[in-house]
Amino acid sequence: MRRVHIGELAWPAYVEKVRQGVPVLIPVGSLEQHGPHMSMNPDVLLPTAISERVAQNIDGLVAPAIAYGYKSQQKSGGGNHMPGTTSLDGLTVTQTIRDVLKELARHGVRKTVLVNGHYENSAFIAEGVDLALRELRWDGIRDFSCIILSYWDFIDQASIDTIYQGDFPGWAVEHGGVLETSLMLHLHPDLVDMSQVRDHPPATFPPYDFFPIKPEWTPESGCLSSASRASAEHGKLILSVCVQGIGDALRTAFD
Amino acid sequence: MRRVHIGELAWPAYVEKVRQGVPVLIPVGSLEQHGPHMSMNPDVLLPTAISERVAQNIDGLVAPAIAYGYKSQQKSGGGNHMPGTTSLDGLTVTQTIRDVLKELARHGVRKTVLVNGHYENSAFIAEGVDLALRELRWDGIRDFSCIILSYWDFIDQASIDTIYQGDFPGWAVEHGGVLETSLMLHLHPDLVDMSQVRDHPPATFPPYDFFPIKPEWTPESGCLSSASRASAEHGKLILSVCVQGIGDALRTAFD
Amino acid sequence: MRRVHIGELAWPAYVEKVRQGVPVLIPVGSLEQHGPHMSMNPDVLLPTAISERVAQNIDGLVAPAIAYGYKSQQKSGGGNHMPGTTSLDGLTVTQTIRDVLKELARHGVRKTVLVNGHYENSAFIAEGVDLALRELRWDGIRDFSCIILSYWDFIDQASIDTIYQGDFPGWAVEHGGVLETSLMLHLHPDLVDMSQVRDHPPATFPPYDFFPIKPEWTPESGCLSSASRASAEHGKLILSVCVQGIGDALRTAFD
Amino acid sequence: MRRVHIGELAWPAYVEKVRQGVPVLIPVGSLEQHGPHMSMNPDVLLPTAISERVAQNIDGLVAPAIAYGYKSQQKSGGGNHMPGTTSLDGLTVTQTIRDVLKELARHGVRKTVLVNGHYENSAFIAEGVDLALRELRWDGIRDFSCIILSYWDFIDQASIDTIYQGDFPGWAVEHGGVLETSLMLHLHPDLVDMSQVRDHPPATFPPYDFFPIKPEWTPESGCLSSASRASAEHGKLILSVCVQGIGDALRTAFD
Amino acid sequence: MRRVHIGELAWPAYVEKVRQGVPVLIPVGSLEQHGPHMSMNPDVLLPTAISERVAQNIDGLVAPAIAYGYKSQQKSGGGNHMPGTTSLDGLTVTQTIRDVLKELARHGVRKTVLVNGHYENSAFIAEGVDLALRELRWDGIRDFSCIILSYWDFIDQASIDTIYQGDFPGWAVEHGGVLETSLMLHLHPDLVDMSQVRDHPPATFPPYDFFPIKPEWTPESGCLSSASRASAEHGKLILSVCVQGIGDALRTAFD
Amino acid sequence: MRRVHIGELAWPAYVEKVRQGVPVLIPVGSLEQHGPHMSMNPDVLLPTAISERVAQNIDGLVAPAIAYGYKSQQKSGGGNHMPGTTSLDGLTVTQTIRDVLKELARHGVRKTVLVNGHYENSAFIAEGVDLALRELRWDGIRDFSCIILSYWDFIDQASIDTIYQGDFPGWAVEHGGVLETSLMLHLHPDLVDMSQVRDHPPATFPPYDFFPIKPEWTPESGCLSSASRASAEHGKLILSVCVQGIGDALRTAFD
Repeated sequence: MRRVHIGELAWPAYVEKVRQGVPVLIPVGSLEQHGPHMSMNPDVLLPTAISERVAQNIDGLVAPAIAYGYKSQQKSGGGNHMPGTTSLDGLTVTQTIRDVLKELARHGVRKTVLVNGHYENSAFIAEGVDLALRELRWDGIRDFSCIILSYWDFIDQASIDTIYQGDFPGWAVEHGGVLETSLMLHLHPDLVDMSQVRDHPPATFPPYDFFPIKPEWTPESGCLSSASRASAEHGKLILSVCVQGIGDALRTAFD
Repeated sequence: MRRVHIGELAWPAYVEKVRQGVPVLIPVGSLEQHGPHMSMNPDVLLPTAISERVAQNIDGLVAPAIAYGYKSQQKSGGGNHMPGTTSLDGLTVTQTIRDVLKELARHGVRKTVLVNGHYENSAFIAEGVDLALRELRWDGIRDFSCIILSYWDFIDQASIDTIYQGDFPGWAVEHGGVLETSLMLHLHPDLVDMSQVRDHPPATFPPYDFFPIKPEWTPESGCLSSASRASAEHGKLILSVCVQGIGDALRTAFD
Repeated sequence: MRRVHIGELAWPAYVEKVRQGVPVLIPVGSLEQHGPHMSMNPDVLLPTAISERVAQNIDGLVAPAIAYGYKSQQKSGGGNHMPGTTSLDGLTVTQTIRDVLKELARHGVRKTVLVNGHYENSAFIAEGVDLALRELRWDGIRDFSCIILSYWDFIDQASIDTIYQGDFPGWAVEHGGVLETSLMLHLHPDLVDMSQVRDHPPATFPPYDFFPIKPEWTPESGCLSSASRASAEHGKLILSVCVQGIGDALRTAFD
Repeated sequence: MRRVHIGELAWPAYVEKVRQGVPVLIPVGSLEQHGPHMSMNPDVLLPTAISERVAQNIDGLVAPAIAYGYKSQQKSGGGNHMPGTTSLDGLTVTQTIRDVLKELARHGVRKTVLVNGHYENSAFIAEGVDLALRELRWDGIRDFSCIILSYWDFIDQASIDTIYQGDFPGWAVEHGGVLETSLMLHLHPDLVDMSQVRDHPPATFPPYDFFPIKPEWTPESGCLSSASRASAEHGKLILSVCVQGIGDALRTAFD
Repeated sequence: MRRVHIGELAWPAYVEKVRQGVPVLIPVGSLEQHGPHMSMNPDVLLPTAISERVAQNIDGLVAPAIAYGYKSQQKSGGGNHMPGTTSLDGLTVTQTIRDVLKELARHGVRKTVLVNGHYENSAFIAEGVDLALRELRWDGIRDFSCIILSYWDFIDQASIDTIYQGDFPGWAVEHGGVLETSLMLHLHPDLVDMSQVRDHPPATFPPYDFFPIKPEWTPESGCLSSASRASAEHGKLILSVCVQGIGDALRTAFD
Repeated sequence: MRRVHIGELAWPAYVEKVRQGVPVLIPVGSLEQHGPHMSMNPDVLLPTAISERVAQNIDGLVAPAIAYGYKSQQKSGGGNHMPGTTSLDGLTVTQTIRDVLKELARHGVRKTVLVNGHYENSAFIAEGVDLALRELRWDGIRDFSCIILSYWDFIDQASIDTIYQGDFPGWAVEHGGVLETSLMLHLHPDLVDMSQVRDHPPATFPPYDFFPIKPEWTPESGCLSSASRASAEHGKLILSVCVQGIGDALRTAFD
């Protein structure tokens, strides 16, 4: 396998790839509790794994993952009051994205992809991209492009049907649920302990957010739906669908 | 009708209401193109109208609306390249929310509601609330609470069925569509010109965001779905459902 | 009457006006107590009313008012300890101005006017303009211009003599006094209750500012001078003088 | 003479004075052109000279002057396009003030005086004080006080009459004029060359600010009024009046 | 081996360790060219490897590494003009450190260690710690402690003598030299290609920094001294000395 | 002697020097305790004195010194808990440097030198320079150059031998020691009281930093080594070596 991690290349090898115009994928994750049955790093391990495979397929590179993300929100991640969840202010996320993109542009990279693994990062990533493009424009660089994606948006209905058998609760409450647990079972089985899965119906929330957090709204597990239906096989399917879908999308988008 | 706008009260009257512990609703909008058939202010007029009615019903107050919001995103608002759309950096939105909430807390207000009318504001509002709560905590204020809501999240399935007759395209592409246009037809008919509605199928987007914006992805109208089915009657229904739902929710939440 | 509020135009109509090169006026106000006899919104209502009339006269447009302003200072606004007064940090004001101006420039607007209704905003507006011009310069835009004005600076000596009959206390202590109350009586009589005017001599202050605020320096009313001499007739005169003076000034300045 | 400059004390001597509760004066100036007849440092030299004398009189201390200030405005300082004028962004001024005050508070100082010599600094100093008080409050320090003053506000009518003989143009256009030049002639005669004074009537401006600056509005000298009437004798009078007035004010204010 | 990476623990296991009062080590690195013979990730891999071993020895935990660092300086890292080097603004580094420390403190962690692998990070890490301590103090947390260390400061003279045989050029120019290359040869031999080592005398610089960078001051390799003397054996020795020294230091410091 | 201080020139004289292309030196200091035997201003007085002399020698100018600096670190300055030490946040230092450099560039200055007298400023100065260069680039200014130096880096081994007689403890602990005290004895003997020197061996520290500061690590004097060997004669030598060395370096660097 070709090395795809920028960090593992010596600079002359990196320069050569940049000259070829390859895209650079940047996994963006978080350190966040994902229930008593799973480690706290799926949001960074999963987009990293996907980025590696996509990079292999489309001759791209992978920049070091951004390991801390924006604050967990109760209705999508259980809430930022949970122990272990370790989050950054929005501005810190935005500036990190901005700075990294500008440096890649300085090297000559023109095609970048932010592969997001933590829902709450989305808006602050988008702002970081906007600020980077603005400053690059001031530097006369107008051909730099950046895609933002969340890997789960590439899972098609057929796969959802296969996995959830009609009980799909929506991505919103998939935190620590079947999706992430299956992927982890396939990719990092040592970081999942299925015996610790708490089986409970998907969390339901009122149609608003309340601050300060009402901890009782979050299931005690910290998960928003049960992972009991998770399996390595499902994980393998999801991974394959995401890698294929993202690769296809990037080929088209950067054409 | 009782005056509900804080700005219209003299300070002693405001002090009296604060002493009674009433909630304060703050409409948060934007100045954003909404197609050739509608004015650019629905995102601020609609949450304001709803806030006024809710405030009447639950004995609350309405703070001046925040009239500019975060940057329009292509897949939910057409994109920030559109003329007329006038947006703030994320940090500016966040700081505005933070500052206003802290001032209300200084007055003695303890129950606040951010009534959002512009999808893209959501994350930056949430960050503003988090920063405000943090600083209030440093000031020893720990009983301040804040609800964030987007009014369309209170529209129930029955109303959706009535209005869309099974063709609901999802809130994501409702920008300048049936929802907002109907509400405007009911509340501000002079700001809508139905003869200018462009009838086109809902916009479809790939499952990622591309920067810089590809203008050709946005329909020429700037709307993401057609408003041709909009009517004042639908608007009246939506308004009533939202006002009722939000009022009920607030009564429960602040109990 | 022609529509002058940008927010009330559909985007194609706005684009057409921008193409014609019309100036855009942006009212900048605050939410601030103005005594027991008057609502807390004069600082935003008055520059808005003036902007509308000037825009009619010079074929301009009016952007949505900025409804919250910088912190009330004791010697010009009673102080930021007063209830109801709801202020932003200086940086928030500056960034809001900067962001809005840059967006207008992106649309193609080249002549802008910040019509200030709240004394304390002045320096932070000026900084926002400077930052906007700097960033626009980085974008290669060098023909953007911006005027900052406070409407009371256009009241001539004759009008002052007519209104104050030789007892003009200076604009510094006109907070909640004859000027603003007269304008409100003319424009929004329902928001003034002359029976609640507290008659006291103009506040006097030592030639320095003291922090934290000494509340006893501010008259209990929150006003710095008495509004008892206010009248709708005076308000009509002031409005006419300001609208005329500002219109003339803008015609000359942008020529 | 007792040493009053903090910088000239060893730390144990400083600690001793702080224990006695003495006030600390902080001159805040700028580096700004003041015409062809005078050096560019009067805004820092003059408040420093005054602070030293006041500190002698009231048993206070003087912190190192802040030598750079906010951007020169055309109608009060000629404009920030002038060569030599070297200014900071508003936020930089505000943060400097905030940081210095917080450090003094950490030492135990509770009475501070910002002695301003540059008109344009005023609002950004006030914001710095507000931010410092806020953070000190979070640290449980609630007895810290701060006075902001501009020395010219202590010149009484009698002195104005003596000096200007009825032709007082207002402080607004006193930039590089009789006031500052007289003080410099008295205190630093080597930094003034009266033969280079340009005699012109006071600058007049329209009642608004225009950006970008119209250089032709500023007299070529960079001064806004003529210094030809300046004299060391006038300077001596002004100095004495200011030192006396400020000393008296501080004794009362901190009582 | 016990799991030491926080990211690999489920939240209940993490909570249990926090309750025991264990210290948390946070590797802080960078993505920076290290010559044609080595990958660009040693600054993050090396402190991570050391942190893991120290954590095993003293019963600590390791937080996810911060993978991007402050701008490479010419005299210690070759300069930030080099391709591949991907750096953050100082403020971004500072805020990241601040945010992560505050979150750990929220969880209950009281002993933290920032294990730095990139010289240029030092001051911005220190500022991040100071800001975190300040805000934690505002939250009433006064028993939180933080150690900052750079691993090479724990290499004793005996080891230096063994490795460099009297030719130690100083840590300043050890960028991509014997130290880092030896550690990488021991820990990640696949990321080093000794055949690509450029043998040149240590870089020499004038006693000042020049901006913009003079690229010709940096050896073409990007290294500041030659790695030709590097060996896995040296790496093993250095690793052992650092792990031992840091472990001992932490036991004492947190006692 | 020619006037070298920018602040002492009238603007036309300054313009003339700028046109000649002369370099501008900017002393950057701090207000920091330096033991019971010395005033708290050496970090600003010493680089100012050196800048003046260098400017005389190489036909340069000296900008007003930046009198407050970054937070004192325990192992190089005793720590920021000491009374009298009055420091700025890192960002404040960085922005001050950035703003001043950009203004000098606006005037036409192209050669600048930051003459640092306070070790802890170094990284924040470098960041300020980087930000200034970035923004100047956006303004199309690409020929602006800036040197950062700390004066002690120009003291050669021969002088060290002469002064320390083989007991040189390293610059790290020279805070308030022989170097600074000797220079002050030569330049400002009235600000030193040798009878107050505390004679103690150089402070020793573990190879890490601990926060919050452990006050007991700092000698009670606040000095990190003893100044008892200091003399005016040594000071004269050091000054001469620094002035010569810096002058030579600048002539070469700007050639």
